[in-house]
Formats: sequence, structure tokens, C-alpha cells
Amino acid sequence: MSTVRPRGDSELSPRAAAVFDEIRATRGSDFVNNFWRSLAGLDDALLERTWAQLKAVMGTPGKLDPVVREMIYIAVSVANGCGYCVHSHTAAARAKGMSAEMEGELLAIIAMASQTNALATAMAVPVDAEFEAGPAEP
Amino acid sequence: MSTVRPRGDSELSPRAAAVFDEIRATRGSDFVNNFWRSLAGLDDALLERTWAQLKAVMGTPGKLDPVVREMIYIAVSVANGCGYCVHSHTAAARAKGMSAEMEGELLAIIAMASQTNALATAMAVPVDAEFEAGPAEP
Amino acid sequence: MSTVRPRGDSELSPRAAAVFDEIRATRGSDFVNNFWRSLAGLDDALLERTWAQLKAVMGTPGKLDPVVREMIYIAVSVANGCGYCVHSHTAAARAKGMSAEMEGELLAIIAMASQTNALATAMAVPVDAEFEAGPAEP
Amino acid sequence: MSTVRPRGDSELSPRAAAVFDEIRATRGSDFVNNFWRSLAGLDDALLERTWAQLKAVMGTPGKLDPVVREMIYIAVSVANGCGYCVHSHTAAARAKGMSAEMEGELLAIIAMASQTNALATAMAVPVDAEFEAGPAEP
Amino acid sequence: MSTVRPRGDSELSPRAAAVFDEIRATRGSDFVNNFWRSLAGLDDALLERTWAQLKAVMGTPGKLDPVVREMIYIAVSVANGCGYCVHSHTAAARAKGMSAEMEGELLAIIAMASQTNALATAMAVPVDAEFEAGPAEP
Amino acid sequence: MSTVRPRGDSELSPRAAAVFDEIRATRGSDFVNNFWRSLAGLDDALLERTWAQLKAVMGTPGKLDPVVREMIYIAVSVANGCGYCVHSHTAAARAKGMSAEMEGELLAIIAMASQTNALATAMAVPVDAEFEAGPAEP
Repeated sequence: MSTVRPRGDSELSPRAAAVFDEIRATRGSDFVNNFWRSLAGLDDALLERTWAQLKAVMGTPGKLDPVVREMIYIAVSVANGCGYCVHSHTAAARAKGMSAEMEGELLAIIAMASQTNALATAMAVPVDAEFEAGPAEP
Repeated sequence: MSTVRPRGDSELSPRAAAVFDEIRATRGSDFVNNFWRSLAGLDDALLERTWAQLKAVMGTPGKLDPVVREMIYIAVSVANGCGYCVHSHTAAARAKGMSAEMEGELLAIIAMASQTNALATAMAVPVDAEFEAGPAEP
Repeated sequence: MSTVRPRGDSELSPRAAAVFDEIRATRGSDFVNNFWRSLAGLDDALLERTWAQLKAVMGTPGKLDPVVREMIYIAVSVANGCGYCVHSHTAAARAKGMSAEMEGELLAIIAMASQTNALATAMAVPVDAEFEAGPAEP
Repeated sequence: MSTVRPRGDSELSPRAAAVFDEIRATRGSDFVNNFWRSLAGLDDALLERTWAQLKAVMGTPGKLDPVVREMIYIAVSVANGCGYCVHSHTAAARAKGMSAEMEGELLAIIAMASQTNALATAMAVPVDAEFEAGPAEP
Repeated sequence: MSTVRPRGDSELSPRAAAVFDEIRATRGSDFVNNFWRSLAGLDDALLERTWAQLKAVMGTPGKLDPVVREMIYIAVSVANGCGYCVHSHTAAARAKGMSAEMEGELLAIIAMASQTNALATAMAVPVDAEFEAGPAEP
Repeated sequence: MSTVRPRGDSELSPRAAAVFDEIRATRGSDFVNNFWRSLAGLDDALLERTWAQLKAVMGTPGKLDPVVREMIYIAVSVANGCGYCVHSHTAAARAKGMSAEMEGELLAIIAMASQTNALATAMAVPVDAEFEAGPAEP
């Protein structure tokens, strides 16, 4: 089911087609997944902005490895209950080197955190003074 | 505020005191944070099980670095909106080597994922056949 | 999939049938969507109460336009990850005048808010004194 | 902090005062907690409707014990991350008979469910045919 | 769809097969649902730990009835938006004695709590001093 | 409490100071709230990007009124449980014209949606064929 019909390659506006070209060039693959096809069916400006931001956040070299970035993305997507994103970023993480062993560790951490998150919320644990960053200078 | 009063060292049952000893030995620090003090105020068996599981999941050597594990923990805690856990695991991640640059990248990924999670859910994007793992063998 | 079998028109109790009549009259359409059919399969009193409340909240003339009300409904449903509700209220918003341009703006706001929600939670931003409503008078 | 100033007894409209009288009579206590005082600061009609519905759902005799109802309320409030509600319904559950042992079991179940919820979402486990309720009759 | 292929009985490792034997013995049924089959497709140690913990939390006799435990599990799963878990634990609750009347009451409480959770969060209701558990002794 | 210390005006890097100047000019007010001060304490690039995107999404004239945009922002923030964001965007919505009557209607819709979201998830209501947008063209 969907609320916005994903667009096929023959249905794209010139702006959307240009984004698709860049997605293909960046990824070195002809496959463009439905997330982008749905955005192309809704709003070209939102498509452009979202792709530009994703490319900056996930593609700019930095301190975190690409596979670590994808595992963090999975963790957020699981906690937010986004089934589509869990599928697409699990595929991406595997393509970037997530082994079965790493995936098992990832899911164990997600499960552990979900559990202690619930316990801390249920007990309304007061934040320790040791964890406080402090106020702004005047 | 809290719903369960955290317990001071002088108020612990022998079972809770034994867990606290192990926490201190494992961490090499005398500081025991309020999460464990609140569990000690509620149920000794739950305290023991939770600590044993956390130690196994976060402390067993594996494919993921300790600092990566803590960053995944933060990601889940943010998405679940657990303020206490965000505080305690941000402190833990920093202690295990998360630099300001890594923290900036982590938050950028969490923000990005939160945004595309919402968009994918709003458009009810259909999962691509390419992402499907397949059924069980009969 | 479903956990409660939706009921067809021939399977309704008299109380459920009366609610369905009112839904049809209020909406000026013969179509009754599965949300009501599932409630009719579970509990007639809950069906009655839920419809009465929805009619009051969404149907009573007030300061907010019907299409604005539906867009707010979509925003909550996306953030709560309710796929069914996203579908039904997107359809309702469009029927009440949500254009493609409005839908693009709506999703951009939802995405933006999801992102800053995550950032504010991750940094545990302290609430500014300027935003405080103050205590009750004694 | 708050976004709506809770109202003291001397600040109530006649409609709000009438609801407060009924809350006091129903509970057999003079204490009216801030949730109702905040609603009284916002919208009298919403205050009336919310109290009427809470009284119906939580106060009408049925198949579930009052303390079980409160424990279910806590479970939802924890998963939704509502700190205020966790406090108010933990107090209510204890007043209605939740012992420390029951509270320990409750939190263990909430923690367990949070963990398997995350695992099932991460693996996108397909729903077994055995769990399907079936379609509406035509 | 799924991200981890559920395993059929002929595809199990010896460790996974042993867990499946125990699930069947504990439940007195040959049916093993897909949650366990997916875990068996991912990580045997996580499968073992999760089953051991579920058995302890849901199967150890205590103060809460088995059917009450399952209803609490449903409440958490609904609030977390886990469709699979809602299906599996609704089936489990019915098998353990949840009548249609109890299910109607359960859903009414879940709906009520979801509503007041949202209202309390929107108004940022300050926690009443009466609900505070107090600090740890020094 | 906070995990990142908000920065005072005297502590800003030149890049952060430039963003603050633009926030003040755009809003016509000297007040810069803690969200931006915390981002300034973490990562200048993230601060710049987040402000640029917020300005584009909330400030570009379009089909939705500024006050409607803020009410949608509140709805998402409530459902995501972000207390800080609820405070800041409630203040913003009031500054842009949200009356007490509009706020009452907004909260009633948020409460209603939260309730039916939970019911639809609990019953796993199947999406009606009438709501389906259809597949991409080949």
C-alpha cells in the first residue's frame, strides 16, 4: 500500500530525473529505490533537499565508517518503527560490509537499549549530577 | 522526580550490594549511577538480570568497538525519548572515546534518519522487492 | 493481516448498524472504511464512543478549517507510525481540499520537526525560562 | 516547566469547578492532580470530555480489576514516554493495590516487550498465517 | 517482507534446534512462530538469550496472571507500533483466556492512555509533589 | 539537565555568531533560544544546516499559514515526546496568532488521533483498497 504513487523512470519531471541521475552516479548502480520514487511523486523540491542532505550526512568522509553510519541509521529506524527504512538501510549496511556477526551484535544492542530505556522511563530515574553538562555562560 | 526512590549504599540488600560490587569492579570506578540505584529500590532479581544482560551485550568482545556500541545505544535512546539514557550513554560514549567530531556526526545521522523515517511513513513507501529476504524453507 | 476481523454490512449488530448509518449520513457516502468495521468486530460500546468523539472533534465547526484538522491528524499519525491512519487521513485530507502543494509543505514540516525533535532530545536542551507558563495560584 | 499554567481552586470557571467537584467525589479525596488543573487552564469542554471518558473507561465495573487497569495504563505511558502519566498512574496503581512484587513483574514485562518489539521490527518478521483474523464477509 | 529470512525446521543449527525443542515442550504445541524462526536466521546466542528471558519473565509463577501478563505485553506492543508483536501476543492472550469483553476493555484503556499521554505531553504538566518518590539516602 | 552545554553570546565561534545574527534578523528579536545555543556547543556545520533548513521549511511563503505550520510542528513534537520542542513551538505558535480556542482544538485533535492510532494498531486494521495510491509505471 502507499499514499503517494512511486514514479517510474518514464514519469519523472526534469528536476526529478536530474536527482535520479545523481543517485545513480553516486551509488554506481542503476537501481533507484522506492523512497526516491515516492518523493518524486510528491514534491520535487523536497526530493532535491532530502537527497542533498542525505548525501552530505552519509557520504561526506568523516570520523565514522560508512558501515557504522548505516548501523546507527538502522538503530534509529527500528526505534521509530519505520519498516521501509529498516529494509532499505539493512540492505545498505550489508552492501557496505555489515557481516552477520555485526548484525547480531547490532540487534542485541538495540534490544538492550529498548529494554533499559523502558525501565528508566518507568522508574523516572533522576539524572545524576555527574552527567550534567552545565549552563551557558552569561 | 522519580517513581522509585534510588537507594544509597547504606540501604542495599545483600543481593543488590553484590551487583554494585560487580559494577564497580567491571567499570574500575566507585561511581554507581542512579539507574542501578533505582532498580535496587524496586526488585533485586530484575537488577541482577539487567546488569548481567548489559554486561554481556556491551562488554563481551566482538566485531563492534565499545564506542560504536555506545553510539548505537544513544541512537536508540534518542529515538525512544529516554532522557535519562541519553545522559548516561552520552557520558559513557565520551568516556570510551567519542570525540566532539564523532558526536556531531552521530547527531547528524540521528536527525537525518528521523527525517526520512517520517517521510517514508507519511508516503507509506512500498518495500522494494530487492530488499526482501525471502520465506522459510518448508 | 488483522487481529480483529472487520465486519461486513450483513454481520452487524443493531448498535453497530446504527453507527454505520450515522457515519454514512454524516459523510454523505456509502463507503464505511475498515477502521469502523474492525471496531464493530470487537466492541459496540467502544465503536459508539469512538465515533461520537471523532464526530465532535473533527466535525464541530470551530477556529480550524476541516483540511487543517486533517493535516494535524496526519502529522500525529505519521509520528506515531500508524500506517492505517496515515492512509485514511491522507485520503480524508485530500477529499477536504489538501492540494499536492499543501501535502508537500505538510511533509516538509513533519520531516523538519522529526529532525529537530531528535536533536533537542539528544542534546537534552534545557527549556528556556521564556517558555515557562508558571505555576498554579495557591 | 509547563506550556499551560495549571489552575488553582480559586481560578476555576464554574464548568471547571463542577468537574473538580466530581473528581473529588469519585475519588473520595480532596486532592486534584495537575493534569486536571492544566486542562482547566486550557479548555473547559476538553476537560469535561476527558474526565467523562476516563471515568467511563477506568471506573465502570467490568472484567478487569482496577489495579490491572492501572498497570495497563502504566505500560502504555512508559512506551509512549509520558513522564507525568508514569508518575500519576504509578501512584494510582499503588493506591489500588499494586504491591512492590507486582510492580517488579510489571516492569519486567514492559522491559521484555520493549526488547522483542525492537527485535521483531528490526527483522521485519512476517506475520504467521496462524495469527490472521481474516477478511470481512462481503 | 522481512530483512532476515525465517528458518524452516530443516535449516536449523543444533543450538537453534535445541531452543525450538524447548519452545515446543514449554508450550505443548508443535507450532513455532516466525519470531523465533527469524532469530534462528540471525544469531543463535541472541535466540537462546531471548527465549530464556521470555520464559523467565512470562512463565515464572508470580503475582500476575498469565492472561494479565499477555495484556500488558499487548499494551506495550501497541504503543511501540510493533505489528508482529500485536498479532502474536493477541493470539497468546486469547489462548490464555482473554475474552472478547476483556479485549474490548483492554483496547479502551490503551486508547484512553494514548490520549491522556498526548495531552499531558502537550501541556507539559508539572509532576505533582505528591507523586515524588524522593532521593537516595546519602 | 543537558548533555551539551548551551553557549552564551560571548562563547560563540565566528560561524555560530553569524547564524545567531541571522536568527535575530529573521525573527526581529534579540532572543536566541537554547536549541540554537546547544547546537552551537556541538557542531557549527550542523547548526548552519539546521537553521538553513528550518528557515526554508517554516519561512518560505506557501499554501500553509505560519500559524498552521507551527500547529503541525507542535503535533509532531507531542507525538514524538519532545518536551523542549513542545515548549518552543507552543510559544512560536502563540506569537504567530494561535488563540486559546485554536490551542484547545489542536490538543483535542492530537488526543483524538493518538487514540485512534492506538486502536488501529491494536486491531491491525487492513488498509482499504480505496486508500491505495497504486504502483509505479514500469
